[in-house]
Amino acid sequence: MKTNKVQNHCHKQQKKNPMALSMKPFIVLSVAVNVMLFMKQFSWSNEQMDENAKGVHLKEEKMRVSSSAVIDDGKTPIVLDHGDPTMYEEYWHLVGEKTTVVIHGQQGISYFSDASKVCWFLEPQFERAVIRLHKVVGNAITEGYHIVVGTGSSQLYQAALYALSPSDLLEPIEVVSEAPFYSSYPLITDFLKSGLHRWAGDASKYDKDGPYIEIVTSPNNPDGSTRQPMVNRSGGMLIYDLAYYWPQYTPITYPANHDIMLFTISKCTGHAGSRIGWALVKDEAIARKITKYMEISTIGVSKDSQTRAAKVLDVISDSHVHKGNFDGISPFFDHSYDHMAWRWQQLREAVNKGKLFSLPVFPSATCTFSGRTFGPLSAFAWLKCESEVENCAEFLKQHNICVRDGSFLGSSSKFVRISMLDKTEKFELFIQRLSIMNTAIA
Amino acid sequence: MKTNKVQNHCHKQQKKNPMALSMKPFIVLSVAVNVMLFMKQFSWSNEQMDENAKGVHLKEEKMRVSSSAVIDDGKTPIVLDHGDPTMYEEYWHLVGEKTTVVIHGQQGISYFSDASKVCWFLEPQFERAVIRLHKVVGNAITEGYHIVVGTGSSQLYQAALYALSPSDLLEPIEVVSEAPFYSSYPLITDFLKSGLHRWAGDASKYDKDGPYIEIVTSPNNPDGSTRQPMVNRSGGMLIYDLAYYWPQYTPITYPANHDIMLFTISKCTGHAGSRIGWALVKDEAIARKITKYMEISTIGVSKDSQTRAAKVLDVISDSHVHKGNFDGISPFFDHSYDHMAWRWQQLREAVNKGKLFSLPVFPSATCTFSGRTFGPLSAFAWLKCESEVENCAEFLKQHNICVRDGSFLGSSSKFVRISMLDKTEKFELFIQRLSIMNTAIA
Repeated sequence: MKTNKVQNHCHKQQKKNPMALSMKPFIVLSVAVNVMLFMKQFSWSNEQMDENAKGVHLKEEKMRVSSSAVIDDGKTPIVLDHGDPTMYEEYWHLVGEKTTVVIHGQQGISYFSDASKVCWFLEPQFERAVIRLHKVVGNAITEGYHIVVGTGSSQLYQAALYALSPSDLLEPIEVVSEAPFYSSYPLITDFLKSGLHRWAGDASKYDKDGPYIEIVTSPNNPDGSTRQPMVNRSGGMLIYDLAYYWPQYTPITYPANHDIMLFTISKCTGHAGSRIGWALVKDEAIARKITKYMEISTIGVSKDSQTRAAKVLDVISDSHVHKGNFDGISPFFDHSYDHMAWRWQQLREAVNKGKLFSLPVFPSATCTFSGRTFGPLSAFAWLKCESEVENCAEFLKQHNICVRDGSFLGSSSKFVRISMLDKTEKFELFIQRLSIMNTAIA
Repeated sequence: MKTNKVQNHCHKQQKKNPMALSMKPFIVLSVAVNVMLFMKQFSWSNEQMDENAKGVHLKEEKMRVSSSAVIDDGKTPIVLDHGDPTMYEEYWHLVGEKTTVVIHGQQGISYFSDASKVCWFLEPQFERAVIRLHKVVGNAITEGYHIVVGTGSSQLYQAALYALSPSDLLEPIEVVSEAPFYSSYPLITDFLKSGLHRWAGDASKYDKDGPYIEIVTSPNNPDGSTRQPMVNRSGGMLIYDLAYYWPQYTPITYPANHDIMLFTISKCTGHAGSRIGWALVKDEAIARKITKYMEISTIGVSKDSQTRAAKVLDVISDSHVHKGNFDGISPFFDHSYDHMAWRWQQLREAVNKGKLFSLPVFPSATCTFSGRTFGPLSAFAWLKCESEVENCAEFLKQHNICVRDGSFLGSSSKFVRISMLDKTEKFELFIQRLSIMNTAIA
């Protein structure tokens, strides 16, 4: 989240650029192509739908196509630097009252939820909702695991480092992850100059002996690839960051059963503002240390947000379990998968229009949850600037597109990370601008 | 919050103790005295009340007296180790629907509240409610201050240390506070073995040169005393922890206007489960660094809890601003002051029954908010075991009363810290047991 700095920079950058001035002739064509592509992609077979369902589906489609009419002036700053999942607002608006929560003044006063539990601030209804959703999706084993709730998965990442770092080492334990990696890992690991742990960079280049901690992010942030541990040496401890292991982003291929697994509602349901994540932890002693970190750093986790997260997760489970009886609204992961597939098709079309950019391609697999066969629909695009462009972020910034420089993610400035989860209107502006840049320069 | 360990220990400690067996004859007398004391304390002058108000006041009184009928068997564990403010549940139950919040599924999706603000995750309605309440109470200046919201004031304490710690020192900066001090300060300061800061203990014994950070907790946790900076040397930086600077605990004597001031709803309104605190920060650069800490550690603060906290703070302001028009319910700080005054009278009566214990006495002052003149009604009792008892916590534990050992608060084991904010039923059990111990042993 190097958000503010970059964003402010972008907001200030309202100066004219020559490229923007030459874009107008392409705009009408671009909009027309856009609408045509959409019509092709979403030629639903509506015969079996009842009238109500038809109405809702039309509303769902309309949400995606309505903003295609936006005309890009080339100047509006498009900030896609951080993974703010505002794309999901549309779905929750559509679902309406089902996801509303009511909290009374006398609720949630105490620090405690259940003092007898390892995680004493874990709300029972949130725990039940997490277990239920993992069972519905089949993306993680929960039996035999302790659940620890966190203020987002960032806090759980720090808590897991705290829990795994031996306190008797002379030097801090080294923490690695295969590049390209989430740019916050080094920052979070080192910002307090902890004597417990220190960032040691790319796991694929790590060749030291002795204990280490490896973060396995799968699907990976930024590129969406499926990851395995890289170092595989004795003395290694693993933290699995599974924030994106949900069926709108990647095929679910097995129920994950690692020692420590981190999840977050921010990327699962889109409710980033609630700051709720959870860890599934096999070993009780480790779960207690993770809980201890939460106790010392924030004396637990917001009960209001846990209450709300429980409701949202339950509504998602309901939308799949009671498929035919959900007011005609598509089940959550079906809707989200459709939307991500549509966004990725848009992006690949724009990239394929010229030779300026490229995107990685990863193999397809069959999803045990949906039965669909597809390749990663990553929450971020890991875009490479081809030709002579050495600093891709700087190049895009000249076109008022703000994204994250690949050098912050353990890679080079030839790459950038672009959020695929922002609002549809902003996403479409971005696609228009990228298409025009690509066509004009080619 | 060394809660779980102590609590579990207490819950296990169900073995019989000889003292408990000898208590029965005192119980009937104790209950009778208790009810009489209460009747004397709350002989309200009801003449001017309308019928509705009378009904509500009777309900308020009943809440306090109803549990006096509880008979102590001497065995039930009484855990008053942590400052869980469940006392406040009663008031919020009484207020009812006024404090209810409704949050819709599509609300609060984004990480951002207002990207143009220093604290970009601060909800505007929460900011307004904080400013309004400080104006109503007159306990802090907000004009010219930046407000940064935190996951409770514990997180803000860490953020303030991060913001004040120079990054160019060879050694970590030393952090001090006058003893007795909040037991979590040393723990929070040192648990990550940070290279930025380290705990250096009692400010009254600090005699080193060079930069340092002093925490001024006023009223103080545990003893409720009014505090001033202790070290007063050049190179010193101050953090004011004003968690208890509210008119139910202490006379408000001036609007605080220090460089960094920390507050929390846990101790102001009782909503500890929401994990919301706020810092008032004079210097913009420091406010930005505090915000940066929040960004790195938890990517902001729960919007759901901010929404709820805004509502609760506004209802408190309303209860005072629209005094006569609040359904006959006492305004929040009047109700809470009455309750704290009653609890402290109960405690002092129990302590004065024998020579086993003593309590500190601090001077009275006139409260600019209420006009009342009174001494501290601390959220914790700082109890001393007189006579030969060297370990007061251990002694009370033999009677199934779990409290915090004074040695954890920079003092000696002759002292203990006892929460005064737990539920009325538990508080009364505690008073009964303490009275009987004191009478029996004397």
